[in-house]
Amino acid sequence: MNYKEQLRQDCQQVEDWLRNCFRGRDPHADLYDAMQYSLLAGGKRLRPVLLLETCRMCGGEADKVLPFACAIEMLHTYSLIHDDLPAMDNDDLRRGRPTNHKVYGEATAILAGDALLTAAFETMLEQGGDLPPERVLAAAACLGRAAGARGMVGGQALDMAGEGHALSLSDVEELQRLKTGALIAAAVEMGCILAGGSADDRAAVVRYAQKLGLAFQIRDDMLDVAGDEQTLGKPIGSDAENEKTTFVTLKGLERCQELVEELTGEAQQALSPFGEAAGFLCWLAGELVGRSN
Amino acid sequence: MNYKEQLRQDCQQVEDWLRNCFRGRDPHADLYDAMQYSLLAGGKRLRPVLLLETCRMCGGEADKVLPFACAIEMLHTYSLIHDDLPAMDNDDLRRGRPTNHKVYGEATAILAGDALLTAAFETMLEQGGDLPPERVLAAAACLGRAAGARGMVGGQALDMAGEGHALSLSDVEELQRLKTGALIAAAVEMGCILAGGSADDRAAVVRYAQKLGLAFQIRDDMLDVAGDEQTLGKPIGSDAENEKTTFVTLKGLERCQELVEELTGEAQQALSPFGEAAGFLCWLAGELVGRSN
Repeated sequence: MNYKEQLRQDCQQVEDWLRNCFRGRDPHADLYDAMQYSLLAGGKRLRPVLLLETCRMCGGEADKVLPFACAIEMLHTYSLIHDDLPAMDNDDLRRGRPTNHKVYGEATAILAGDALLTAAFETMLEQGGDLPPERVLAAAACLGRAAGARGMVGGQALDMAGEGHALSLSDVEELQRLKTGALIAAAVEMGCILAGGSADDRAAVVRYAQKLGLAFQIRDDMLDVAGDEQTLGKPIGSDAENEKTTFVTLKGLERCQELVEELTGEAQQALSPFGEAAGFLCWLAGELVGRSN
Repeated sequence: MNYKEQLRQDCQQVEDWLRNCFRGRDPHADLYDAMQYSLLAGGKRLRPVLLLETCRMCGGEADKVLPFACAIEMLHTYSLIHDDLPAMDNDDLRRGRPTNHKVYGEATAILAGDALLTAAFETMLEQGGDLPPERVLAAAACLGRAAGARGMVGGQALDMAGEGHALSLSDVEELQRLKTGALIAAAVEMGCILAGGSADDRAAVVRYAQKLGLAFQIRDDMLDVAGDEQTLGKPIGSDAENEKTTFVTLKGLERCQELVEELTGEAQQALSPFGEAAGFLCWLAGELVGRSN
């Protein structure tokens, strides 16, 4: 099976699981509709794929950790819903569709985010199956650290505080490390933990994810300046509009592309201890260098 | 030690733990300030006390489960911050002080809520100490179920959807069961799980909490009509203003007081299998009957 087909299969498994995860629940007003609207809005499913494939690379069974992969996507989705709110980035479009609060109203969008965040933990804690409980605990704790005030939420707070101010390169790097890097690193670390990987394995996959996450963010900043609105599914230029300092404003487009390529090479290098088993994750890093959405 | 002194000591332990739990963290803009502003704003600490004392009654060590007691208070606090937001109940005062978004702005209030919700799970998953991992998982999963779309968040969604509509008694009961009852039931169930209580023990303490939670909500509805603003720390009459159907609008004040007393008796009765060990929790239920804040 080639890597492209493997990626397609991973994504399909994630889609199927997410599509069914709230089936049979009593409806509470629009709440589940709003949760599913954003959860099933497409997206690259990067974080779940990273978790599944890291687990596989570290010798674990990807099938057994699918609920954890989907939990991280629930958590990612909640963060997008809340980030889009009028009090935050005030975005009207996401992935080519109206944002959650545009469809369901602010109150329901806030609650849908809260419910998805909670559902991420519920899922991990309830669906560990026959995995050792110590691994389930360690993986869920890893996601908790990455998602909270020491990670993603802390990054969003810095991001909001930084609008309209000039930031240094190290400020922007710190912001990226928290806001997007923490969750990407958690995805691979959780995959490794759930597979029973060693401390050295964990260090290697986290190094991969840190490089990959930074490359991913720089590419994101580039697309906000030079991307195609149709392909992106959202208007470009929002960073400039919100007066955000980004890697592009600090370094320029050309140097950013070089950086993305350097970082991608370093990410691939970090996985050398895994030899051939790292094939997919190295390929995936390469695919993201030139992505256009 | 009398019960009043025991309650004071439990509350003091919770206050001390909450006051120190984010110490030494890097500040991210106003985020931790906003989290602590609401977390340390007083309050009855009912849920943590229920967890600690149920654990004790079921033969567990209260000291070991203090982080879980505080986690549930973090979760309760997040729900208050989000409920007060302009898009939700739009409240300006809480416990005699301006609400979170009035002080820190909407964006930070949303993020402080998100961070406290996440911190509740982080705390449980990281600070289980030498408790058996199966119990830690089961207790955290219990809180997840109670807090999410099947519990508290689902209740808040129903509450928002119900404003301005006439609700039946069974609608109002369902709303209470989800919005406030689920978390109160989770507090005692978690205490029992962490102590290693039997399935019968769990059923009994949950029955206690269901009766107590309903009595608590009816009393809340009564205070919103007939309470003293100074003692409550918030304006009365907000239910009427938001055109909410409550136990008082359905049953009247006099019948509500009778119901509170009946339910309190049933709550106490539910703990009869525990004999003298249930002394504190029976006393606590009695204390809540006549509370004025």
